[in-house]
Amino acid sequence: MEGEPTLRLRIFDLNCWAIRYLSKRRQERVRLIGDALRREGFDLVLLQEVWSEQDYSDLRMKLAGCYPFSHYFRSGVIGSGLCVFSRFPILDTLLYQYSLNGYPYMLQHGDWFCGKSVGVSVGVTAPLLSLSLQLHAEYCREKDAYLPHRLVQAWELAQFIRHTSKAADVVLLGGDLNMHPEDVGIRLLRGWTGLRDAFAEATRFEGCKNGCTLVPDNCFTVKSELLPFPLGIRIDYILYKAISSFTVKCEELKTTTGPAPGTDIPFSDHEAVMATLHIQRRGQPVGASLGTADLVDVVTEARTEVGVGLRAAQRQRYSSGRMAVLALLLLLLQAAAALGILAGLGAEQPFPKLSFCLLAFLALGALVLATGLHLFHTMEVKMLHGTEDQMWMALRALQERP
Amino acid sequence: MEGEPTLRLRIFDLNCWAIRYLSKRRQERVRLIGDALRREGFDLVLLQEVWSEQDYSDLRMKLAGCYPFSHYFRSGVIGSGLCVFSRFPILDTLLYQYSLNGYPYMLQHGDWFCGKSVGVSVGVTAPLLSLSLQLHAEYCREKDAYLPHRLVQAWELAQFIRHTSKAADVVLLGGDLNMHPEDVGIRLLRGWTGLRDAFAEATRFEGCKNGCTLVPDNCFTVKSELLPFPLGIRIDYILYKAISSFTVKCEELKTTTGPAPGTDIPFSDHEAVMATLHIQRRGQPVGASLGTADLVDVVTEARTEVGVGLRAAQRQRYSSGRMAVLALLLLLLQAAAALGILAGLGAEQPFPKLSFCLLAFLALGALVLATGLHLFHTMEVKMLHGTEDQMWMALRALQERP
Repeated sequence: MEGEPTLRLRIFDLNCWAIRYLSKRRQERVRLIGDALRREGFDLVLLQEVWSEQDYSDLRMKLAGCYPFSHYFRSGVIGSGLCVFSRFPILDTLLYQYSLNGYPYMLQHGDWFCGKSVGVSVGVTAPLLSLSLQLHAEYCREKDAYLPHRLVQAWELAQFIRHTSKAADVVLLGGDLNMHPEDVGIRLLRGWTGLRDAFAEATRFEGCKNGCTLVPDNCFTVKSELLPFPLGIRIDYILYKAISSFTVKCEELKTTTGPAPGTDIPFSDHEAVMATLHIQRRGQPVGASLGTADLVDVVTEARTEVGVGLRAAQRQRYSSGRMAVLALLLLLLQAAAALGILAGLGAEQPFPKLSFCLLAFLALGALVLATGLHLFHTMEVKMLHGTEDQMWMALRALQERP
Repeated sequence: MEGEPTLRLRIFDLNCWAIRYLSKRRQERVRLIGDALRREGFDLVLLQEVWSEQDYSDLRMKLAGCYPFSHYFRSGVIGSGLCVFSRFPILDTLLYQYSLNGYPYMLQHGDWFCGKSVGVSVGVTAPLLSLSLQLHAEYCREKDAYLPHRLVQAWELAQFIRHTSKAADVVLLGGDLNMHPEDVGIRLLRGWTGLRDAFAEATRFEGCKNGCTLVPDNCFTVKSELLPFPLGIRIDYILYKAISSFTVKCEELKTTTGPAPGTDIPFSDHEAVMATLHIQRRGQPVGASLGTADLVDVVTEARTEVGVGLRAAQRQRYSSGRMAVLALLLLLLQAAAALGILAGLGAEQPFPKLSFCLLAFLALGALVLATGLHLFHTMEVKMLHGTEDQMWMALRALQERP
């Protein structure tokens, strides 16, 4: 980048919704995405929810000519689903897994199994740090049980960006944040890192109204979930930040609308976000991050939500612990009864072997389950508590700022 | 640090072995550690295995006068056990959890439950990045089943240091690495980050022979484990690195020997490591890291070991998957038999309710267990595979170096 007066960088970001056996017309869509990427020739492509390594390999084969560099981030049971294709060399990669990511027993919300993480690739001769990521999904906006987890993720992400971006000239983040633009998690992430929203900064915009990326017009979206939002919602973002003596301007932002060219289906249930950035040496970074007072407000708000989550997790830890103790007591009682029988007590009455066996089985099952839950919620409490502490430290540092 | 010609930094590092109910004379030893820290007045204290938050709180109360800044890192079921006390302000903290850390079913080796992590604190007016950490324990040197996990941790740690240290002037790492100085993990960590070993660099040394920190003379160590090493082993380290225009020199390194002053017991089963560093502005960093050829060798060696671990994990994933399928088949067979009985088939023979119940219970237990194991080993495979990939990318980058 050095020595070059202006670098024009075209970025493509898409949540591909490519879940094997579950996503509709997956292979066809992955093929369409590959075709479009090859045709358009972006500089950097950040994809999420590419859950199958086969799909990644197919894409890589197809795109080898125009995107010679790529990386697939592996984590969790299923994978992280993240991959990146680049026209410029990827010099290094790093994977950061969030410490909290939903509950293993919420099988219908598969987040826990996905190993959600940030995939970082350092490339374009080192100064560009690009992050591809996905945060925990929001399943119910009114009663969002995952808000504390998503806030912990947003905080960890912000801290991670602060600590890893210092040697970069430009930080670029693309992904499905699963948060609306005004949500506390987005405000926290943007405020704490100084990242700017390409949609808000773009000189030209073209695409779905308000930059929405999950729209009712898309044939794959669940219409009932979008009922309160007739225009759709914006949850996929391209965020960026210039460090040191660089400036970044967003010349143009686009989203896809309707079906992919020449077909009857869109690329995914999400719309793709495409940004054209101008990166220039010299000059002061445009636009400041939040003022201290605003930052204190947003960190305080986030910390309150994390505190709510902490108390809920403490209650769950307590009740699962109590259940484990009760199950253990029942088992001990049964053992005592069995010993009594063996010792010849109550031999005059017939012993109900089957019910006894079933009861023992139930008690043992409850014990194992409750112990597992107790351990899980103990970890959850530790992480929420740790995040609350870190936020408190951040608030203290903010308040001591001159 | 700026403007000051030389900073003399005294650092204390100790694996405190403070496990509630398990560690011998824990409270007494924590009190002794607190007394010594207050008396000696170090600049920075990095402690590991402080598993009880109560112990941390007690230490914090006691040390508030001489170490006004401290942080306890929370993670995992039990905690990370890491804490840091500092005479200088701690500006920010960050916790990085390793993606692999042993097996949950190896209850006798509690590593999985500990949430082993690196605690990073940024302090002394920002330029000092200090890390406190502990890697997976080695339980059997001859047949070290955890070597791939420890190597993944060493690699993640090295990558983490590379990415977070760029804005720091000095990186300082203290902890129980559970590796001997010549082990591939240590060589990987040092080679890939350029960290230098305070023991090797120290102008003066005082303490146990060869700088050993787990010695047979310590009354808490398990003598049988140290039989092949009559002098003991060195597994606790202070490593450091100067960045940009700073130089760091290790003036003195000490380890504790024998019982704490005025008592009959040592601080812990590990010996403490104490370093006095001189940090100076201007001048070139002393001592280079490994040459490219050596670095290629060590990364290749580490990658081979990770590959061995990967194949073992794949075998375990396969066999647990097969066991789950067999258990499921057995359950289905039983369900078919039960349906047959209900449909009136074989009604002339007495139905063995109890054995049937017990068998179903066993099959269900095996199914749950095997599925859990399968999921766990799937994650393990992903992480080992991901690390192998990252190392391959690193090797390619090394080989392309001019």
